[in-house]
Amino acid sequence: MEKNYKILLAYDGTRYHGWERKNNTDMTIQGKLEAVLERMAGSYVEVIGCGRTDAGVHAKEMVTNAKFETDMSPEEICVYLNHYLPEDIGVLKVSIASERFHSRYNAVGKTYCYTCYIGKTKPVFERKYVYVLDEIPDVKRMRKAATLLVGTHDFASFCANKKKKKSTVRTVDKIEIIVDGDYLKFIFHGDGFLHHMVRILVGTLLEVGWGRRSVESMMEILEAKERAQAGVTAPAQGLCMMSVDY
Amino acid sequence: MEKNYKILLAYDGTRYHGWERKNNTDMTIQGKLEAVLERMAGSYVEVIGCGRTDAGVHAKEMVTNAKFETDMSPEEICVYLNHYLPEDIGVLKVSIASERFHSRYNAVGKTYCYTCYIGKTKPVFERKYVYVLDEIPDVKRMRKAATLLVGTHDFASFCANKKKKKSTVRTVDKIEIIVDGDYLKFIFHGDGFLHHMVRILVGTLLEVGWGRRSVESMMEILEAKERAQAGVTAPAQGLCMMSVDY
Repeated sequence: MEKNYKILLAYDGTRYHGWERKNNTDMTIQGKLEAVLERMAGSYVEVIGCGRTDAGVHAKEMVTNAKFETDMSPEEICVYLNHYLPEDIGVLKVSIASERFHSRYNAVGKTYCYTCYIGKTKPVFERKYVYVLDEIPDVKRMRKAATLLVGTHDFASFCANKKKKKSTVRTVDKIEIIVDGDYLKFIFHGDGFLHHMVRILVGTLLEVGWGRRSVESMMEILEAKERAQAGVTAPAQGLCMMSVDY
Repeated sequence: MEKNYKILLAYDGTRYHGWERKNNTDMTIQGKLEAVLERMAGSYVEVIGCGRTDAGVHAKEMVTNAKFETDMSPEEICVYLNHYLPEDIGVLKVSIASERFHSRYNAVGKTYCYTCYIGKTKPVFERKYVYVLDEIPDVKRMRKAATLLVGTHDFASFCANKKKKKSTVRTVDKIEIIVDGDYLKFIFHGDGFLHHMVRILVGTLLEVGWGRRSVESMMEILEAKERAQAGVTAPAQGLCMMSVDY
């Protein structure tokens, strides 16, 4: 009998063109996972992801689900998938979910972490997971600006490729900015994030931290509802999906 | 005037054929560093390393020295080197050393760490810096065997490519075996290590941990002075040079 499986993933997104399967290429996380599941189940298996990560973005705990039939136990499926998936995609856990569980529709919150490197030398071992800053930003200024962004807002200015019919209102209930040794971390929690939203928020906050924008300008950016008003999109490699709430 | 500079390096050895410069290839750490120093100083600069790391071995603090003439301050040299070196080789610090300082001859102790992964899933982000174990070894057995290896011994059995005329006696004063979450770490401190010695020690200790060798057999291996008596050479990627004492 077909069951609905919840599959938790971790991946180093460096080599991939993001989560979403595309035509004529299997260098996507979804494509890689579906290919191994098809091999296992004997027919095509669609994997639903809790969201779409961009090319180069990483995940420490991405939630997905897929319906298929197998004689294997969840533990055996986990071992099988880890064996056939490339070494930069790992399955953390496989469990049987309720028939109606949908990893995207049922997600009520997500946590992302964006990591910058502010040390004096080079992040030799962490280089693919951080954005190296040449100039150290003013953390206090960024924290003030972040408080203006927290809340339920129309984040249209922080969205790439806005689609006319879809709402760009989201609730971001936490933006924490932490200095941890040589690392500067931005932790975001919200009910959902628009395309490139976390990276544009980070890029904009860094511009505030470098004194190139005022703290108060956050209000104007939100009100403008226009991508051009916000800051640059911070590089993908610093971003990591940390967890999803249901 | 020519000065003797002490240059501290960190590197991810994954892409390199080890420390030592070879003919017809610059994919060595020494080769990369000498090429950038030559560019800076305007003529060939020989870099002396505190030791030779094998292909694929990493370093968190490798000590080197080189004599050259420049108008730049040590801080400026550091910035220059980091700018022109690839992103997987970093200069931690440049300082002026005494004229007679020799990073290899003056080294009196070295610390190496060998890291194994013993978690249930896959070390997606650490995969290039660990040796993944399919079977968890018995740590107590390994610690007992390690105490038999600590001391001043002829480590000929733990040496690849032994040269007849050179002494294979070394003093290893610490072998610490630590379980740190999903990681099993072997920390070695000694006055020097032979070719592949740390990796053969780890490979042999793991065989003890897996019950394939007795604890007591360590004595026989040392006495045999024959490479074939010891265990396999653990893979390079788990090994990292941690620090050097002078």
